Amino acid sequence: MDVRELLEKVKTGAVDIEDAQKVLKDLPYEDLGYAKLDHHRKLRSGFGETVFCQGKPDAYLLEIYRRFYERDGEVLGTRATGEQFKLVQSAVPEVVYDPISRILKVERPGKERKGLIAVCTGGTADIPVAEEAAQTAEYFGCAVDRIFDVGVAGIHRLLSQRDRIMKANCIIAVAGMEGALGTVIAGLADCPVIAVPTSVGYGASFHGLSALLTMLNSCANGISVVNIDNGYGAGYLATQINRLAVR
Amino acid sequence: MDVRELLEKVKTGAVDIEDAQKVLKDLPYEDLGYAKLDHHRKLRSGFGETVFCQGKPDAYLLEIYRRFYERDGEVLGTRATGEQFKLVQSAVPEVVYDPISRILKVERPGKERKGLIAVCTGGTADIPVAEEAAQTAEYFGCAVDRIFDVGVAGIHRLLSQRDRIMKANCIIAVAGMEGALGTVIAGLADCPVIAVPTSVGYGASFHGLSALLTMLNSCANGISVVNIDNGYGAGYLATQINRLAVR
Amino acid sequence: MDVRELLEKVKTGAVDIEDAQKVLKDLPYEDLGYAKLDHHRKLRSGFGETVFCQGKPDAYLLEIYRRFYERDGEVLGTRATGEQFKLVQSAVPEVVYDPISRILKVERPGKERKGLIAVCTGGTADIPVAEEAAQTAEYFGCAVDRIFDVGVAGIHRLLSQRDRIMKANCIIAVAGMEGALGTVIAGLADCPVIAVPTSVGYGASFHGLSALLTMLNSCANGISVVNIDNGYGAGYLATQINRLAVR
Amino acid sequence: MDVRELLEKVKTGAVDIEDAQKVLKDLPYEDLGYAKLDHHRKLRSGFGETVFCQGKPDAYLLEIYRRFYERDGEVLGTRATGEQFKLVQSAVPEVVYDPISRILKVERPGKERKGLIAVCTGGTADIPVAEEAAQTAEYFGCAVDRIFDVGVAGIHRLLSQRDRIMKANCIIAVAGMEGALGTVIAGLADCPVIAVPTSVGYGASFHGLSALLTMLNSCANGISVVNIDNGYGAGYLATQINRLAVR
Amino acid sequence: MDVRELLEKVKTGAVDIEDAQKVLKDLPYEDLGYAKLDHHRKLRSGFGETVFCQGKPDAYLLEIYRRFYERDGEVLGTRATGEQFKLVQSAVPEVVYDPISRILKVERPGKERKGLIAVCTGGTADIPVAEEAAQTAEYFGCAVDRIFDVGVAGIHRLLSQRDRIMKANCIIAVAGMEGALGTVIAGLADCPVIAVPTSVGYGASFHGLSALLTMLNSCANGISVVNIDNGYGAGYLATQINRLAVR
Amino acid sequence: MDVRELLEKVKTGAVDIEDAQKVLKDLPYEDLGYAKLDHHRKLRSGFGETVFCQGKPDAYLLEIYRRFYERDGEVLGTRATGEQFKLVQSAVPEVVYDPISRILKVERPGKERKGLIAVCTGGTADIPVAEEAAQTAEYFGCAVDRIFDVGVAGIHRLLSQRDRIMKANCIIAVAGMEGALGTVIAGLADCPVIAVPTSVGYGASFHGLSALLTMLNSCANGISVVNIDNGYGAGYLATQINRLAVR
Amino acid sequence: MDVRELLEKVKTGAVDIEDAQKVLKDLPYEDLGYAKLDHHRKLRSGFGETVFCQGKPDAYLLEIYRRFYERDGEVLGTRATGEQFKLVQSAVPEVVYDPISRILKVERPGKERKGLIAVCTGGTADIPVAEEAAQTAEYFGCAVDRIFDVGVAGIHRLLSQRDRIMKANCIIAVAGMEGALGTVIAGLADCPVIAVPTSVGYGASFHGLSALLTMLNSCANGISVVNIDNGYGAGYLATQINRLAVR
Amino acid sequence: MDVRELLEKVKTGAVDIEDAQKVLKDLPYEDLGYAKLDHHRKLRSGFGETVFCQGKPDAYLLEIYRRFYERDGEVLGTRATGEQFKLVQSAVPEVVYDPISRILKVERPGKERKGLIAVCTGGTADIPVAEEAAQTAEYFGCAVDRIFDVGVAGIHRLLSQRDRIMKANCIIAVAGMEGALGTVIAGLADCPVIAVPTSVGYGASFHGLSALLTMLNSCANGISVVNIDNGYGAGYLATQINRLAVR
Repeated sequence: MDVRELLEKVKTGAVDIEDAQKVLKDLPYEDLGYAKLDHHRKLRSGFGETVFCQGKPDAYLLEIYRRFYERDGEVLGTRATGEQFKLVQSAVPEVVYDPISRILKVERPGKERKGLIAVCTGGTADIPVAEEAAQTAEYFGCAVDRIFDVGVAGIHRLLSQRDRIMKANCIIAVAGMEGALGTVIAGLADCPVIAVPTSVGYGASFHGLSALLTMLNSCANGISVVNIDNGYGAGYLATQINRLAVR
Repeated sequence: MDVRELLEKVKTGAVDIEDAQKVLKDLPYEDLGYAKLDHHRKLRSGFGETVFCQGKPDAYLLEIYRRFYERDGEVLGTRATGEQFKLVQSAVPEVVYDPISRILKVERPGKERKGLIAVCTGGTADIPVAEEAAQTAEYFGCAVDRIFDVGVAGIHRLLSQRDRIMKANCIIAVAGMEGALGTVIAGLADCPVIAVPTSVGYGASFHGLSALLTMLNSCANGISVVNIDNGYGAGYLATQINRLAVR
Repeated sequence: MDVRELLEKVKTGAVDIEDAQKVLKDLPYEDLGYAKLDHHRKLRSGFGETVFCQGKPDAYLLEIYRRFYERDGEVLGTRATGEQFKLVQSAVPEVVYDPISRILKVERPGKERKGLIAVCTGGTADIPVAEEAAQTAEYFGCAVDRIFDVGVAGIHRLLSQRDRIMKANCIIAVAGMEGALGTVIAGLADCPVIAVPTSVGYGASFHGLSALLTMLNSCANGISVVNIDNGYGAGYLATQINRLAVR
Repeated sequence: MDVRELLEKVKTGAVDIEDAQKVLKDLPYEDLGYAKLDHHRKLRSGFGETVFCQGKPDAYLLEIYRRFYERDGEVLGTRATGEQFKLVQSAVPEVVYDPISRILKVERPGKERKGLIAVCTGGTADIPVAEEAAQTAEYFGCAVDRIFDVGVAGIHRLLSQRDRIMKANCIIAVAGMEGALGTVIAGLADCPVIAVPTSVGYGASFHGLSALLTMLNSCANGISVVNIDNGYGAGYLATQINRLAVR
Repeated sequence: MDVRELLEKVKTGAVDIEDAQKVLKDLPYEDLGYAKLDHHRKLRSGFGETVFCQGKPDAYLLEIYRRFYERDGEVLGTRATGEQFKLVQSAVPEVVYDPISRILKVERPGKERKGLIAVCTGGTADIPVAEEAAQTAEYFGCAVDRIFDVGVAGIHRLLSQRDRIMKANCIIAVAGMEGALGTVIAGLADCPVIAVPTSVGYGASFHGLSALLTMLNSCANGISVVNIDNGYGAGYLATQINRLAVR
Repeated sequence: MDVRELLEKVKTGAVDIEDAQKVLKDLPYEDLGYAKLDHHRKLRSGFGETVFCQGKPDAYLLEIYRRFYERDGEVLGTRATGEQFKLVQSAVPEVVYDPISRILKVERPGKERKGLIAVCTGGTADIPVAEEAAQTAEYFGCAVDRIFDVGVAGIHRLLSQRDRIMKANCIIAVAGMEGALGTVIAGLADCPVIAVPTSVGYGASFHGLSALLTMLNSCANGISVVNIDNGYGAGYLATQINRLAVR
Repeated sequence: MDVRELLEKVKTGAVDIEDAQKVLKDLPYEDLGYAKLDHHRKLRSGFGETVFCQGKPDAYLLEIYRRFYERDGEVLGTRATGEQFKLVQSAVPEVVYDPISRILKVERPGKERKGLIAVCTGGTADIPVAEEAAQTAEYFGCAVDRIFDVGVAGIHRLLSQRDRIMKANCIIAVAGMEGALGTVIAGLADCPVIAVPTSVGYGASFHGLSALLTMLNSCANGISVVNIDNGYGAGYLATQINRLAVR
Repeated sequence: MDVRELLEKVKTGAVDIEDAQKVLKDLPYEDLGYAKLDHHRKLRSGFGETVFCQGKPDAYLLEIYRRFYERDGEVLGTRATGEQFKLVQSAVPEVVYDPISRILKVERPGKERKGLIAVCTGGTADIPVAEEAAQTAEYFGCAVDRIFDVGVAGIHRLLSQRDRIMKANCIIAVAGMEGALGTVIAGLADCPVIAVPTSVGYGASFHGLSALLTMLNSCANGISVVNIDNGYGAGYLATQINRLAVR
C-alpha cells in the first residue's frame, strides 16, 4: 500500500487533496453495482479473484467472466454447471469446462508448475472434490500428484503409496463417510496436511458433518480442516504453503 | 418357556387354574416395588442381571446387591463410586472394587475363561471404558487380550500388534476424539468388530459425538457400534459372539 | 501374509530384493487409477469386495463390475438404480436386479446356506433395508428367516413370532420411527442383535436420527447398531457372527 | 367471565365507569412487582397456581408460599431443594417435603381421590419424575396406581402388569434411555397415554433428547409427550383427562 | 383376553393343547407376509387400524385397502397422493379423497358425532395438518369446531373466539413458525390441549423444530405435544379424551 | 382503544349491551374462514398487513389480494412465484412483480420517502434478501441506500463505503457464509444495525445456521438479528426505527 | 474522522509525514498489550466501552477499571461476581455492585434520563437478564419502565399492562422456556421490540435454544433478537433506538 | 524407512530372519502397556511427541515425563493443572509451568528461533489459547509475534497492526464469540492463516460451535481451521509451514 508515497506527493503538491482522497477510495476494486471486482487482490496476495459460479444470475456471470478475462487474460471459476459453460462460452469462446471438478476456466498456456502437492482421496466418490483442489493448485502454479481411493478401511492401499505421498510439500486429504484419511496420513507425513471433508455418505454422515467432526478431532499433529466439499479452498491454501516451500 | 408343561399339568389337574395363573405371573422376577429383579434372565439368556450403580439411591443399591448375592453367590455392577463401594462392603464384605473401570463385583472363584476377545484402545485416556468392557467379558467367562494405545495417528503401533489382534473371535475397539480405530481394525480383521466411542476429547468432540459418528459411518465391513462410553455393552455383546464361536 | 516365505526366498536368492519390494507393493490390489480393487480382501477376510453403486459414474461402474465378474465369477452391488442395472447388463448379461433391495448382482449357483439369521422389521416401509440385509447374508452363505411388520406398537405380533426369532444365531432388527424393536427383541433373545435404524418417518424422526438414538440408548444387553439404512453392513456383520457359530 | 354482568351494572349505574375499569384490570391477579400471582386461575381452570421453586430467590419464594397459603390454605411447589424446605418451613410450619419427588407442599387433609391414573416407569432411576407426576395428580384429586421398573428390555415385567395398567382412565409412561415404554403401553391400552422422557442415561441419550425423540416418533396411537423430566406437567394433564372421565 | 376361558376348556378337554397353542398364536392379526393387519385392534381399543399411505408400494396399498374394506366396510388412510387415490379407486370405487388433508377413506354413512373438539390454527398454512386432525376425529365419531388463523401475533383474533374454544372437551392447537398458539390457549382453557407443531416456516424454523421446542417448553399447564405435522395423532388422541368425557 | 367511549355509550343507552358485545368482537378483522384479515392493524401500528405468498393455495391468494386492494388501494406480498404473479394479475391487473426480491405488490403512486436506511450485503448472492428488505422499507415510506458486495473478506471495499453507510438512521447488514458483515459495520456505526443471515453457502453453513450464530454472537454493540433470509422482517423493523428518527 | 484536516496540515508542513503516520496509528486506542482500550469509541458512537467481567483475570480487570475510571470518571461492567466487586472496590472505592443484574459500575451522578424503554419479562426467573438490560439503558441515559412476570400463559396479565407498554419508544421482551412473549407484544405494539431469550428452563429448552428459535421465527412484525441472556446488548440497542426518537 | 538396508543384511546373512522380524516390530516405540511412547516420531517428522496432560492418571503422567526427559532432555506437555505441575516437579525438578497457557515443559536452553509466526486474538479472553499456540511454536523453534485484542468489532485496532501481521510466514487467528477475525486477516494477508475457534462466549456460542462454523464458512481464501481451543494444534501446524518457508 503506497500511503507514504501518496502522502509525499500531497506534501509536494504533486497530488492535491481531493485527488488523494479519490485514489484512496477508488483504487482497490471495480464497482459493477451488484459486485465489486477485487482487481487489487492480485497485487495484495499474488492470486487473482476466483468466481464462485453456483447460483450467480446469468447476466452477472457473463459480465464477470468477460471483465476478468479482458483484464487478466485468464479466469478461474468453480461449481459451474454445463448450462453456465455454454452461456460463458458464447462470450468467451476460449473457456474450458471439466464436468468432474465443475471448474470453468481460461488458463494462460505455458505456466510453469513448481513444487509438489499430493491430493489423496478415501474413495472414488470423493474425486470431484479432489479434482477441484488439484486443478485449483495447478491453475495457481503447483505440480500435483493424484493418489485416489486409498481409504483407511484397506490400510495396505495407503501404505503402499507412502513414498509418493511423502514427497509433497503439502498433502490434501479428501474423504467423506468417517473421514479418517487425514489422521492416518498426518501420522505418517512430516508436512502440513489439509483435510477436506466431503458430503459423500448417507444416514448419520449428515451431509459431511461426520467427516468434518472426525477431521477436527484428529489425534494427529499438523492437520487442519476446510469446509465440507471445499476443494477450492484446500487447493488455494496448499498453493500458498507450496509457494513458501519453493520460493 | 414351560408353557406346554404347565398346560399339561393343568389338563391332568396336577396344577389348578388359579395356581397356573400365579405361576405365569410371578415366575419371571422378584418385585421390590421400586425395582423388579429379573432372576429369570439367567435362564433366558445365560447371563445374570447386572447392576447399573450410577445414581441409585443407597437403600436401593444395598438391597439389590444383597438379593443378587444371596441368590447367585455373585453379582456384577458398573459405574460405581468409591462411596458406593464402602456402602455395599458393609453388607457384602466380599465385594471388590476397581477404581479404573469402576466395576464393583463379587465373582465366584475358579471360573474358566474360554475363547478370545481382543480389547484395543486408541489412547491411554480410553482405558477406563476398555477395562469396563474387558472385565465384563472376563466375568461372563471369556479370555481377554488387552492391546492399549494403538491409535491410528501412529499407524505403526497398530500394525505391529496385528498378529495378536487377529487371533480373537471378536474385537472391541475403544476410541474417543476422531474415533477411527474401529475402521482400520475392521479393515484388517476377519471377525466382528464392536466399536465403542468414548467421551475423551474436547471442543468439537462434543462429548463423544464425533467418535460416535465416525464409527457409524465406517467404510469398513463387519463393524457395529454401541453407546458412548458403553464398555459394559460391548463386553456383553462380545461375550455372546465369543460364546457362539466356542460352543 | 507370506512375509516369512518371502524373506526366506530373499535369503536363498530365489527372489531378489527389487522383486521382493514389488511383491510387497503390488500384491494387495488392482489399481484402476480412480479405484483400487481389493482382490486381496477375499484372502484376508473370506468375503469379496462389494460395490457401492450409488453415485458411481457410469464408466467406473461398468469397469468395476466387469473386473470383479471376470476374476471371481460373481459380484455383489448395493444401492443400484434401474438405470444402472440396464447399463451393467449391457456388459455383464448375467446380472440380476431386485428393485426392492436395490441389489445388483451375479451370484454363482448352488451355494450352500448355513446357520440361521433372523431379519425382523418394525413396519412394511422398513422392508427395503431389511431385504438389503437379508440378501447380503444369503449371498455370503447364510440361511435367513424374514419376519416383517412386527413393530412394538402391537406387541402381540412380535410375541407370536418369538419361537422363530429365537432359533437364529444372530438377529437383525430393522426399524424407523421410534426404533424400539431392537430393544424388545434383545430382551427376549440370547444371541447378538444388530439394530438397523431406517430413515422411515417424518418430522422429528429427522431422517432416522430418532431411531438411531433409540437403538444406541437401548436398555437391553447384547445389541449394537449400524448406520441409518445400512442393511448391507448389518447383513455382512451377521454373516461373520453366523460363520463363527457354524464353523 | 362476568363481562355481561358488569356491563349491566354499568348501565344501571350500580357500578360507575372508573370502578368498572378497575375491576377489569385488578381482578385477575395479585401484583408483587417481581411476580403476578394468578389467583383467578382457580376460577378459570379449577386448579390453583403451582410454584416452580427452582432458582427462585429466597425472599420471593417465602412471600409466594405465604400468600398462597394464606389465601387458599394449601399450596403446591415443585423442584424444591432441602434448603428451600427449611426456609419455607420457618414461615409456613405446615409445609411438607418429599426428597424423592422434590415436592414441597401444604395439602388440605381429607381430599377425596377420584378416578384412576396409572404411573409407570421404565426403570428405578425414573422414579423421581414419576413421583412428581403421581403426587401432582393426587394433590389435584386423582387416585393413582404406581407401576415401576417395567421397561421394555424385559417385556414380561410389563405384560404381567397389564391388567392393572388397563384399569386407568389415563396412563403416564415415564422413561429415559431409549424411552420406548410409552409406545408399548399405548399399543396395549385404549386410553390416553402421556409420555414423559427423562434425562436418565448417558452418552448419546443427550440428557433426555433420545427418549424425547423416541416418544415423539411413536408408531402407536393415543400418545402425546411433555418436556423432559416434566412430571408435573404430565400429572396436571392426566388430572384434566381423569376429571373429564369421572365428571 | 380369554386366557381363563381357554384354560378351562383345556382342563375339560373341550380344547386340546395343540389347538390352544394355535389360538393363542393366530388370533390377533392377519398375516400378509409384508404386513400384519391388526384386526384385533378394534376389539382392544375401539378404533380400527389406519393406513399410513406415504411410501407404500402400490401392490401393498391396494391389497391393504381391499382387505380392510371387505372386513369392516370402511377404512381410513392418511398422507395419500392423488395418484394413490386413483389407484385405490380402481379396486374400491367408494373411496373418497380430500387433497387438502390428503385423507383417503371410505366412511360408513350415518355415523353419530358426539362431544366436541376444537381445532385451531395459527395461520392459513397450517390448515392441511388441522384438517387431518379434524377429519380423523370426525371419522372416529367426534363433533369438531374449526377455528383457523388465530395466531398469537394478532392476539385479538384469538380472544374474540374464546367462547367457541372454551366449549370443547379437548382442544387441538396447530401452529408452525414460533408455535406459541398452544400456550396461550392452554392458559385460557380448562381442558386438555394437544399441540401440533407444523413444518410451516423457513430458515431457523428448521422444518418444524422451532415450533416443536416451543410447545414442549410451554409455561402453560394442561398441554402435551405430538410429532411435527402429526394431525392424525392429535385427532386420534383427542377422540380418546372426548370419548372419556361423553361416555 | 375506545373501551371508555363504548362504556359511556352503554351507560347513556346510546349503545345497547348486545351491540356493545358485537363491536368488541367484530371490529378488529374480516373473517374469510381460512384467514382472518387484520384490517385493524393499520390503525394499531401504522402498517397494513402483508401477504406471505409462499405456499398459499391459489383461491386463498387471489381473494386476499382482491380484498386488501379493494379496501386499501395497495397491497404488499413477499416470496411470490412467477406463477402467482400471473394468477393475481388476472384479478388485480395493477399488480407488479420483481423476480429478484420476489415481491408482488400494488403501490400507490407518489409516496414520499423519508429518512435513510442503508442496506448492505456481503456478496452478490445475498442481493435477493437485501432487495426484499429494501423494497419493504421503500413501500412503507423510507429512503434506502443500497451498498452491495462489501463483505469482510476484502475489508477495503467496506471501508471505502463508510461515509455512505454512516449517514443512515438504521443499517441492514445481509450476509451468508460466515456472516461477519454485521459485526464490522456495527463496530463502525453509531446507529442500530439489523443483521440478516442468509442461506447462501454450502457444507457447514447448514442453510444459514452458521451466519445466524455468528450474528447472534457478535462482539459489537447495537446489533440484533432476524430469521434466516427474512429480508421483509428487517425492512419492516428498520422502517419503525427510521420513523422514530424522522418524526 | 479528521483525515482531511490531517492531510491539510501535512500539505502546509504543520505536521510532518512521520507524525501523520503515528497519529493515524495511535489515535484510536490505548494499548495495554493484553487489551486495547477503545477510548475512541465514545467519539465514534457516543457510548463508552463496557467491561465484560466474566473470566477476566484479576490483574487485567483491576487495571481496566482503573484506566476507564481515571479517563472518564465512570465505568460500566457486566457479569461481575461478588469477588470481582471486592477486588475492584479495593482500587476504585466508588464502585457499586448489584447482585441481581451482576452489574458493577461507577456512574456519574445527576444524569438525565430521556425517552422511555419498557422492559418486560415472561417470569420472575427472567428478572436478572431484564435488570441487566434496564440498568444498561439507564446508565446510557434512558428512562425505563419495568413490567415483570407477564408471560403469555396467563395472557390477562399482559393485556392489563398494555397501556404502560404502549408508551415506550422501544420494548425489550425477556423470556425463557417457550419465549413467546416477544411475539404477542410485537403484535400489540407499534414500536420496535427487542427479544431476549433467556436460559431459564430445563429439558428441551436446551439452555435457551428453544426461546431463541421461537423469537427468531416470530410471526409478528417489528421484532429482532439478541443472544441468549444478552440483557446488555438489548439495553444498548434500545438506547440507540430511544436516542433516535428523542433527539 | 530402512527396509532395504535390512533386506540386504538378511540376504548376506548379517541379520537372520527372526531378528529381522523383531526389528520391524520393535523399532518404532517403547511400550509401557498403558501407553506406547512414539520415540520414532522425531525421526519421522522432526518433532518429539507431546504429552496431553488433561485427565492422565498421576502414575502414568509421572512415568511419561520421566521417560521423555531421560531420552530427549526436554519434554512438552499441554493442558496441565497446577497439581500436575507439583507432581511432575517432584520427579523432574527442571520442569516449568505457565498457568495462562497451562503448558508444562522442560526446554533445552539456547534454541534458535527462526522465521516468523504472528499469533492474533480477537479479545483478552482468547489469550490462554493463543499462548498455547505461541509457546508451542517457540518450543519447536519459531519466532513469534503476539498481537492481542484486535477483534473485528473495532476494526481500526486490527488495521493499525497490519504491518506487523503482514511480516509473518503464517498467521494464527484465535477468536471466540462470532469468530470473524480469521476472515478479515486472511483477506488482508498473503500467507496461510490458521483459525482457532475458542470456547469463549455464552448462550448461542454453544461452547465454541459458533466461532467454529464461522471459520469453516469463511469467504476468504487461504484459511483453515483446527478444533475449538486447540492452540497446540495451530502452533504445531504453523511451525511446519514456517519451517518450509525458512529451510
